[in-house]
Amino acid sequence: MNSHRSDLLKAFIQQPEWSWTKEAQHEGRVHHWIENVNEWDGKKADAVLLGMPLSRSSISVSGASEYPDAFRKSWRGFSTFNLDEGVDLSSLSVLDLGNVMMHGTDILESHRRIQAATVEAAKRFNDSVTIGIGGDHSVTACAVRGLKEVYPDETIGILQLDTHLDLRDTSPNGPSNGTPIRQLIDGGAVKGEHVFNIGLHGYFNAPALISYAKEHRVNMITLKQARQKGITETVQAALAQLKQTTDRLYVTVDMDVLDIGFAPGVPASTPGGMTTQELFDALLVIGKDESLKHIDFVCLDPVKDTVGLPTVKAGVYSFLQVLTGMALAKRERGE
Amino acid sequence: MNSHRSDLLKAFIQQPEWSWTKEAQHEGRVHHWIENVNEWDGKKADAVLLGMPLSRSSISVSGASEYPDAFRKSWRGFSTFNLDEGVDLSSLSVLDLGNVMMHGTDILESHRRIQAATVEAAKRFNDSVTIGIGGDHSVTACAVRGLKEVYPDETIGILQLDTHLDLRDTSPNGPSNGTPIRQLIDGGAVKGEHVFNIGLHGYFNAPALISYAKEHRVNMITLKQARQKGITETVQAALAQLKQTTDRLYVTVDMDVLDIGFAPGVPASTPGGMTTQELFDALLVIGKDESLKHIDFVCLDPVKDTVGLPTVKAGVYSFLQVLTGMALAKRERGE
Amino acid sequence: MNSHRSDLLKAFIQQPEWSWTKEAQHEGRVHHWIENVNEWDGKKADAVLLGMPLSRSSISVSGASEYPDAFRKSWRGFSTFNLDEGVDLSSLSVLDLGNVMMHGTDILESHRRIQAATVEAAKRFNDSVTIGIGGDHSVTACAVRGLKEVYPDETIGILQLDTHLDLRDTSPNGPSNGTPIRQLIDGGAVKGEHVFNIGLHGYFNAPALISYAKEHRVNMITLKQARQKGITETVQAALAQLKQTTDRLYVTVDMDVLDIGFAPGVPASTPGGMTTQELFDALLVIGKDESLKHIDFVCLDPVKDTVGLPTVKAGVYSFLQVLTGMALAKRERGE
Amino acid sequence: MNSHRSDLLKAFIQQPEWSWTKEAQHEGRVHHWIENVNEWDGKKADAVLLGMPLSRSSISVSGASEYPDAFRKSWRGFSTFNLDEGVDLSSLSVLDLGNVMMHGTDILESHRRIQAATVEAAKRFNDSVTIGIGGDHSVTACAVRGLKEVYPDETIGILQLDTHLDLRDTSPNGPSNGTPIRQLIDGGAVKGEHVFNIGLHGYFNAPALISYAKEHRVNMITLKQARQKGITETVQAALAQLKQTTDRLYVTVDMDVLDIGFAPGVPASTPGGMTTQELFDALLVIGKDESLKHIDFVCLDPVKDTVGLPTVKAGVYSFLQVLTGMALAKRERGE
Amino acid sequence: MNSHRSDLLKAFIQQPEWSWTKEAQHEGRVHHWIENVNEWDGKKADAVLLGMPLSRSSISVSGASEYPDAFRKSWRGFSTFNLDEGVDLSSLSVLDLGNVMMHGTDILESHRRIQAATVEAAKRFNDSVTIGIGGDHSVTACAVRGLKEVYPDETIGILQLDTHLDLRDTSPNGPSNGTPIRQLIDGGAVKGEHVFNIGLHGYFNAPALISYAKEHRVNMITLKQARQKGITETVQAALAQLKQTTDRLYVTVDMDVLDIGFAPGVPASTPGGMTTQELFDALLVIGKDESLKHIDFVCLDPVKDTVGLPTVKAGVYSFLQVLTGMALAKRERGE
Amino acid sequence: MNSHRSDLLKAFIQQPEWSWTKEAQHEGRVHHWIENVNEWDGKKADAVLLGMPLSRSSISVSGASEYPDAFRKSWRGFSTFNLDEGVDLSSLSVLDLGNVMMHGTDILESHRRIQAATVEAAKRFNDSVTIGIGGDHSVTACAVRGLKEVYPDETIGILQLDTHLDLRDTSPNGPSNGTPIRQLIDGGAVKGEHVFNIGLHGYFNAPALISYAKEHRVNMITLKQARQKGITETVQAALAQLKQTTDRLYVTVDMDVLDIGFAPGVPASTPGGMTTQELFDALLVIGKDESLKHIDFVCLDPVKDTVGLPTVKAGVYSFLQVLTGMALAKRERGE
Ligand SMILES: [Ca+2]
Ligand SMILES: [Ca+2]
Ligand SMILES: [Ca+2]
Ligand SMILES: [Ca+2]
Ligand SMILES: [Ca+2]
Ligand SMILES: [Ca+2]
Ligand SMILES: [Ca+2]
Ligand SMILES: [Ca+2]
Ligand SMILES: [Ca+2]
Ligand SMILES: [Ca+2]
Ligand SMILES: [Ca+2]
Ligand SMILES: [Ca+2]
Repeated sequence: MNSHRSDLLKAFIQQPEWSWTKEAQHEGRVHHWIENVNEWDGKKADAVLLGMPLSRSSISVSGASEYPDAFRKSWRGFSTFNLDEGVDLSSLSVLDLGNVMMHGTDILESHRRIQAATVEAAKRFNDSVTIGIGGDHSVTACAVRGLKEVYPDETIGILQLDTHLDLRDTSPNGPSNGTPIRQLIDGGAVKGEHVFNIGLHGYFNAPALISYAKEHRVNMITLKQARQKGITETVQAALAQLKQTTDRLYVTVDMDVLDIGFAPGVPASTPGGMTTQELFDALLVIGKDESLKHIDFVCLDPVKDTVGLPTVKAGVYSFLQVLTGMALAKRERGE
Repeated sequence: MNSHRSDLLKAFIQQPEWSWTKEAQHEGRVHHWIENVNEWDGKKADAVLLGMPLSRSSISVSGASEYPDAFRKSWRGFSTFNLDEGVDLSSLSVLDLGNVMMHGTDILESHRRIQAATVEAAKRFNDSVTIGIGGDHSVTACAVRGLKEVYPDETIGILQLDTHLDLRDTSPNGPSNGTPIRQLIDGGAVKGEHVFNIGLHGYFNAPALISYAKEHRVNMITLKQARQKGITETVQAALAQLKQTTDRLYVTVDMDVLDIGFAPGVPASTPGGMTTQELFDALLVIGKDESLKHIDFVCLDPVKDTVGLPTVKAGVYSFLQVLTGMALAKRERGE
Repeated sequence: MNSHRSDLLKAFIQQPEWSWTKEAQHEGRVHHWIENVNEWDGKKADAVLLGMPLSRSSISVSGASEYPDAFRKSWRGFSTFNLDEGVDLSSLSVLDLGNVMMHGTDILESHRRIQAATVEAAKRFNDSVTIGIGGDHSVTACAVRGLKEVYPDETIGILQLDTHLDLRDTSPNGPSNGTPIRQLIDGGAVKGEHVFNIGLHGYFNAPALISYAKEHRVNMITLKQARQKGITETVQAALAQLKQTTDRLYVTVDMDVLDIGFAPGVPASTPGGMTTQELFDALLVIGKDESLKHIDFVCLDPVKDTVGLPTVKAGVYSFLQVLTGMALAKRERGE
Repeated sequence: MNSHRSDLLKAFIQQPEWSWTKEAQHEGRVHHWIENVNEWDGKKADAVLLGMPLSRSSISVSGASEYPDAFRKSWRGFSTFNLDEGVDLSSLSVLDLGNVMMHGTDILESHRRIQAATVEAAKRFNDSVTIGIGGDHSVTACAVRGLKEVYPDETIGILQLDTHLDLRDTSPNGPSNGTPIRQLIDGGAVKGEHVFNIGLHGYFNAPALISYAKEHRVNMITLKQARQKGITETVQAALAQLKQTTDRLYVTVDMDVLDIGFAPGVPASTPGGMTTQELFDALLVIGKDESLKHIDFVCLDPVKDTVGLPTVKAGVYSFLQVLTGMALAKRERGE
Repeated sequence: MNSHRSDLLKAFIQQPEWSWTKEAQHEGRVHHWIENVNEWDGKKADAVLLGMPLSRSSISVSGASEYPDAFRKSWRGFSTFNLDEGVDLSSLSVLDLGNVMMHGTDILESHRRIQAATVEAAKRFNDSVTIGIGGDHSVTACAVRGLKEVYPDETIGILQLDTHLDLRDTSPNGPSNGTPIRQLIDGGAVKGEHVFNIGLHGYFNAPALISYAKEHRVNMITLKQARQKGITETVQAALAQLKQTTDRLYVTVDMDVLDIGFAPGVPASTPGGMTTQELFDALLVIGKDESLKHIDFVCLDPVKDTVGLPTVKAGVYSFLQVLTGMALAKRERGE
Repeated sequence: MNSHRSDLLKAFIQQPEWSWTKEAQHEGRVHHWIENVNEWDGKKADAVLLGMPLSRSSISVSGASEYPDAFRKSWRGFSTFNLDEGVDLSSLSVLDLGNVMMHGTDILESHRRIQAATVEAAKRFNDSVTIGIGGDHSVTACAVRGLKEVYPDETIGILQLDTHLDLRDTSPNGPSNGTPIRQLIDGGAVKGEHVFNIGLHGYFNAPALISYAKEHRVNMITLKQARQKGITETVQAALAQLKQTTDRLYVTVDMDVLDIGFAPGVPASTPGGMTTQELFDALLVIGKDESLKHIDFVCLDPVKDTVGLPTVKAGVYSFLQVLTGMALAKRERGE
């Protein structure tokens, strides 16, 4: 193993500020089940998760940097058992790798660290599904570039659930949260035709970005179209197409794809978006799919959430839906 | 009539702290229609309601004790006419019996009072539907035990709308709001197979409780299953089964069965729950059913509600849906 | 042109307190596209909008007077491109005529000014769709009376999306926000049978008002009925009927038709209402209809909205849906 | 007695929508002590209070119309015993006369009713201190005109605690909440030199109004000046001067005189205002003064108050401070 | 050592649900400095703190049970250095003993556990100042009874900072948060004349309680009296008197002594209370006093606090003021 | 003039997104009085203000970037007349130069632009007082470096009103909002002994920073010390000392110097801070001082402010106090 990387790991990965006191009485709850790890080597897991607490790269004010910790804090309210599907997630092993340590003012350095950490995680946990917890959407470009670094010969496909195209030009304002897909297409890491964006709706993408999307053959599937075909059917079709044309799937879930009535805690909440139920159904399908290797959840701003924390809870629920899908697939495979 | 009971009634039932000033201009509104009563004897009514303002028995902090009064305060915004069904509720007589007076620190005493008050109400209003207004879910165990006391030879069936099973063991923390169904099963008042829980979803019940439920053959119907069959069809099927196997129906509505987007004002609000429309449809079906004798609404915490009081309003609407069902049935019966 | 009117125009129309600084970088956004005008003559437009910031005529406390400005402030977050329909609204010309200046304490004078301003707008922009931005629902009566003044020989039909009938008697409290349809029927400007109200639900209309509605043959279509037939089909059927029986269509959208979960920012928010998606679909159909000449949006109270401004955003989205419909129709007509 | 007046009383005075259920256990609390009255004749009291729930006359959106009821609802949290002064308020008799019934849209009619009700109250309770509970500040002009009607030969002096001069011209917007003192001076009811305004501060009065104040010799005492001399000393000096030059004292307390840190629940809250302690001290002095005959509290908007209701509680506390002063004076007089 | 006690300790003391990850970069912050301990024996400390998370004994709805954890969570924002006094608190050793484990529904059992835990803490840390973190005020009676159990021959004096007397009779509602001082006096643990209550103000104590206080010679010092003499001088005088007449000082700080403008996060927040600065000054004096052995902070409800957590921060600041006083005294003693 | 600079000006200064519609009726209000300018040359003014909307350089999540616009939006509620001092600010000319345009992700570039803009403003308006409106505290280091660039031979003195020392080391996290004074001392722009920090209090500065401060002889004056001497006397003494030892005064006001009870809208709000009145008094003294040349207001986060916007209003009031001081001095000088 590259020892420079190892130093980097020590330097740039940190444990959350606090950790759960695990007691027997909490058995069967998510916070008791997911395991914190300080050492990455020699570990095996079905999934690993990595916090990417960066949001100073957001165009508007965002507290998405607070989400990885708010996410962990909310685990306590969730059981490992999914009643709808009759499956206990504790049949999976899930490791919490901690957070990538962010720089206070050098955003590009933070981006480099996210990329480097993704490289390390992908290498050391190449049998695991990696789950990134943002942070704003700029982290996705870093993570995908990291994967491209590890798997230079593979074609990467992106399934994006988002209200926005994220195709803004980086020239005026750098690699902000409005730019990740543009960065990847312009940088050659991903082709436009290998991006499927499901959940676009309404009046939230400028005409110029739509022209760019068409020009680069980004697959734009509006929420209206998805509902006509069925949300889960639409996701399955996109996954099928990506499997045919690409080698490695990266799923990115911008929580602002949800309707403002269900998810007020995102910087750009909008009416006319997905219901939580639709998102949960979509993520179950994604979790079941054998091609799932990498997924992230971004742009959830707990600072903006309302008192009962509907958005943070929807974030944890979404994460667990992916794991439920994985557990069902594992059961089906007889593992 | 048992004079000890009568004293108990005087001792433990109190009128709300305030009462509506009834004026002609408010005719046709709910607060003008429902009648406050101080004396229980010699009254007849289609339905009677009784506040059970106890929430210090809740596991987490709960202001559900404030609900009976918040509920009454919100009546003013509701008409007696249901436009969807074209029925005027003033064709029914509804009495407000006041609140069971709670003890400040002796929770078991409060439970005894709720049970005793239920006994009295069931005896004196045995032709009426009794409607309990919680309070947290611990009040349901008291009420059902009270009914068992009055009707020792009857088999009681429970239709529960809830996100949770409420099957926690009472040994560590006593008869809290997580335990009512467990209390009733363990105490022999109700059999597990006579409990139908509709609305369970997601990750909100510990594996051990699910095992208990299976072992005692509690009928767990997830929201996903209910939606596949149709919510109203699912409720009708459960009512039909309960009619075949039990003598007396008790319906208990835990308002946390609703999705957090519609009902933030419950201690354990979750995403992925029922919409208010689904609950309203279910309650109309329940109200229409001739077997309805007892119903309660619990775990609505007005202290946690947001500014426009969506949850309190949903609580009043829910209550009126049951009455609408009753009024439709009455009309159909030609009364 | 009537010079008295012209003076009136100068006296009673005012620009919003502030105006957008238009910069190239905002091209493609709504606030960059809609044009402010100080002079009404010699202008042509597909649509004109006029603020009617009156809410002291509301029965309950209302900040709907703040909506016209909150509405304009929120434009900045919206693109001119509707992705669902693939249409760029900048193919339409839309003028912002400013606000009718309200009197501080003389509500009837404010009503007269709204009527007079509507007369002027209807005359000078008789090829445009006029869009009123309330204000509470009392403004609708003024606007319709204004149209009747301009087109005395035409029969006016009203399509109302509302939770309420707005048929209260004006005798106790004057022309408040609960009375506009009653005013128009009693005043002879509109016949009850030419009013279609879609979206009524639940327990929010007093029995006496329902009797009045029946007596005057107001077409009451509950949300439940509309859903059974399909919301868009219901709207299309109402439009078709109105086209057959009336000469001029006035559409009035009371934002309280929306469910409280989606639109907390209205004085009388209720559970059991329309979803934003349903309203958006209905408005698209309305916008496409060639008979659309006049529409208003009322009773949205931004002061009561929650932090992310879901209701204000739903208001802007609703307005854009109408324009999207118009743009689609225009494209279809090959203009 | 004037029978016209009597009819007016029946027509325009109403009891609050609800009333307290008085129980022995609440003895010693304010809501148990203050007595509701339906009949005004033949009653004697140290003080009478009258709600004036009008705020559609406010320049900005105001929910001050909700204050009389919020005020009564908050009594329950207050004891009749003032510990600082060692006096029990139950030594005074205080009657709640109910609310003046407001017209829904005719503000001038509402103003006439307030004036008429003040006339009646002043006549029938001429030995009592009358306490008006607004509503916005426009009610003060009505009340003072009413007193002038009853006591045409008396010179009225005004002690105003306010951040604002309330000297706006009525010509553009009528008798709004920014105009009461101007109305009274321009209308000849009160002379500018007989108005003492204590609490003015900062940047909240336009230059033109200050010119008017100087021209009419209104006594402007800034908060800074009052603090230099001592708040209570300043109030005492103003009372002394008014006693020398006028026959009848009217005290008007605009709750926006308080600093925004203590009283967020007013339409125009400002930093740099009075602390609650300073206001409470001032009101004690006022209550002790034998010349106190009439006082009102205005512009408190409970809709805008924060969760713990600091402003409403400060409003009740303020009211009780006046009564404490009265009780101390009564004790001193040996009554 | 009593082995029964030891078992009790194991059974009823628990670590907080989570613990800080201590990192070098946090040196100099409170959360890095205070040490968590699982074992009580063989430890020495200047002060020990013990959470008492009970609030179901509160008369009104209270989330004070959440305070011990909210308190610890807030440590992170505080330095160990007090700039005003130029002293570094890290010169003191402070141990966090964890929380007394509460029973879910048996309040008396919870009270017994608090008493037992106090006994243990007092015995094992008899050289330390013990600091109780409530919970509501009922915990104080338990703690004082515990001390009486350990030191049966000592006379206990109480310095209480509170808006309320806490002298309610336990007969109707048991040992609730309104009763602790009454419990201690009636139970013979403390004499009324050995209680000094500083901070009483306004209208928040019923006449009957004041009579009881006088009868039992409780020293009632109103805030007004304290300010006249000087808050710190008043505290010093009370401490001096208590030293003369009692053997052991117990200080209890009800955070509702603070004004609602500074501390909204208490169940019974009032205007007219202490400023935070006054409380901080008082606590510095108390911390400096050599007689300080036991102190608690109660009735702070973080659930009711506003967004910036002013009350929780005031709670931590208050706690640190006591320690600052102790550190200054230690420095003075040359330790 | 340097033409490179001129281009920079065009490139990096932008007008606010919107501007006030100035109408005669608003005469005498701040928003009507302050003049927007697009061209800087040939203008003269008593004061110029420049927005510096940067807060992604903040350690914790901050919306201080929104303050310059929130500040301007709030002008409308303020008169130009200061009643306490009897002075009309319209005797001063004040220009609004717009905002420095920030880069979306390159924080150092944003810092360079702030520095460059300060250089331009200082050069072109060298007779004016320059007023910076942050943004977070990192902007101060840029501004002072800019002044050092324009006046390389002058010694700069800093009067800082702050809860914090802002002496954090830049090495781990770059030039964040915790570092400006450290940057200036380490960079040689300012000497520690020429920094006076007034308002420090409590537990909000790490021991290591205090050591640095002592080492570099930064003048730390705690709030407690300032109150003992008098706030205004303390400020005057600091100004006097700075005048003796330095050539050019820079005043920087971190709004978090205010107590959390008055100013919740700052990222690091604390109890125990300054009252608004104390800050307003201090700023009046500063405004009167002839040595005032440069001042900034930083770290006010309107996103975190409560509903009535107490902090934003305190920010505008603070700004006006400086101008009031200037106007008084001007009047005294007979200008
Ligand atoms: Ca995105
Ligand atoms: Ca997005
Ligand atoms: Ca339950
Ligand atoms: Ca439940
Ligand atoms: Ca309406
Ligand atoms: Ca309506
Ligand atoms: Ca006023
Ligand atoms: Ca005022
Ligand atoms: Ca207490
Ligand atoms: Ca207390
Ligand atoms: Ca600072
Ligand atoms: Ca600071």
